[in-house]
Amino acid sequence: MTAVARAFVPGHVTGFFTVDRDDDPTKAGSRGAGLALSEGVTVTVRRADATEVTLNGETVEIEAVERVLAALEATVAVRGVTDLPVGSGFGVSGAMALGAALATNDLLDRRLSTYELATVAHGAEVQAGTGLGDVVGQLHGGVPVRLEPGSPQHNRMDAVPARSRVEFQTFGELSTSDVIGGDTDPISTAGERALSRLVEEPTLERLLGASRQFAREAELLPDRVYEVVTDVAEAGGEATMGMLGRTVVALDTGLTDAGYDPTVCRIDPTGATLLDPPAERSLPE
Amino acid sequence: MTAVARAFVPGHVTGFFTVDRDDDPTKAGSRGAGLALSEGVTVTVRRADATEVTLNGETVEIEAVERVLAALEATVAVRGVTDLPVGSGFGVSGAMALGAALATNDLLDRRLSTYELATVAHGAEVQAGTGLGDVVGQLHGGVPVRLEPGSPQHNRMDAVPARSRVEFQTFGELSTSDVIGGDTDPISTAGERALSRLVEEPTLERLLGASRQFAREAELLPDRVYEVVTDVAEAGGEATMGMLGRTVVALDTGLTDAGYDPTVCRIDPTGATLLDPPAERSLPE
Repeated sequence: MTAVARAFVPGHVTGFFTVDRDDDPTKAGSRGAGLALSEGVTVTVRRADATEVTLNGETVEIEAVERVLAALEATVAVRGVTDLPVGSGFGVSGAMALGAALATNDLLDRRLSTYELATVAHGAEVQAGTGLGDVVGQLHGGVPVRLEPGSPQHNRMDAVPARSRVEFQTFGELSTSDVIGGDTDPISTAGERALSRLVEEPTLERLLGASRQFAREAELLPDRVYEVVTDVAEAGGEATMGMLGRTVVALDTGLTDAGYDPTVCRIDPTGATLLDPPAERSLPE
Repeated sequence: MTAVARAFVPGHVTGFFTVDRDDDPTKAGSRGAGLALSEGVTVTVRRADATEVTLNGETVEIEAVERVLAALEATVAVRGVTDLPVGSGFGVSGAMALGAALATNDLLDRRLSTYELATVAHGAEVQAGTGLGDVVGQLHGGVPVRLEPGSPQHNRMDAVPARSRVEFQTFGELSTSDVIGGDTDPISTAGERALSRLVEEPTLERLLGASRQFAREAELLPDRVYEVVTDVAEAGGEATMGMLGRTVVALDTGLTDAGYDPTVCRIDPTGATLLDPPAERSLPE
């Protein structure tokens, strides 16, 4: 019997989005687009007498993870390890929820399909109020475009065919639930306009441009983020705000060229995936 | 301006399938399931005065590739390199078509989306009569389950959440177009039954078991393939026929344990993806 199961889930920064509510959390969600990142969360699950969730060694409460474990009727220890900033728009809670779903299914032989597991994780994020589109983007990897909202069993996807170095830097936290809990009509209007622009020309440059326009129109752009995005543009680069965080994401060497000191990664081509478990003897308790 | 563009497309072995005809080649296709393989085709595209297509250094005529290039209005040299056996059920023609679509779009800045490009490649394969589901499986990677037929813009997908070592060995060629050109009703009936069994329990073991039952019911099993699959089972392993080839695919060390000398690879988690172009100076002409 397997003693431990592991999954890797890429980070996901959203460029623009709509808010699509529905009484059924698996049909609620958002349309929009973003980048899946080679920096992500490695989630390890093992059997335990009581459920415990840790992130980088600290015990944490992540409602989306608790909801996933309840749906899978699992009492397990979930350990997340990541270099991504938390609470800054990289989809860490979605990654924890999706990684926990994939690894727990593997560990406990629950025999759910990939899209069923992603639907459980997506619904859990929606119900927790911590995300609307990250899980879907993280499942697919690459540069996911969400044409219709909802879980992978309900939505409609496309993607921008691109590879790129990506840089990001974070200047503080923003609360997703504060923003998506308020009046979201102006956000959705701006998000629909951005999606139309991207579908017209599905390239990375258009994604970044449509995202900048979205951030202005939806009035989501903190001053500091605006300054940094402008600096990158003045240095000849492409950057935008990572929704929803005080985060700037740039293509290639955009932030470096503008004199910042960003984290460097790439677009993740794969999406969420099970990993081979670590060798038994290398497992810390 | 980019001088060359490259894509990697995983091989895809089909375990079971239906034949779903439609006057629109982007809606025609098949339901079914298979394995995307870490062995695949690397496709390099460069500008040229006349279109030329090579596979492992030999000039080849692949109708699906020609149709893709016509749709993209491209005159380019397409070079495919693979260790996969050709004409043996690994989706080499689909990989060439999808790889040519992704790389040509990148090289010539055609600004189509990933799903648009996959739709072009899928429609080209259907019209050429060389494949019904490979392009879709190759786009997604992993263990793709095609719940509804057609291109990525029309179909409905799921996947089996699994990773595994995979072994395969080929004992000769089979013509896809001979089989899918004949009476396919018994195939589709068996394929629908296999799909129901897999959806009920989406695991690798069930995929292999449902595929073996499909091969028997659809009467597609050559004697030699039957013998080898039986040998693997008697050695305690899981194997099935790779559709449509005289090919046996086994999980883990199934063929090795039964005394065969297979090629070893893994399930490819990523699916078709653009690669960084090779360094200019390393390019052979």
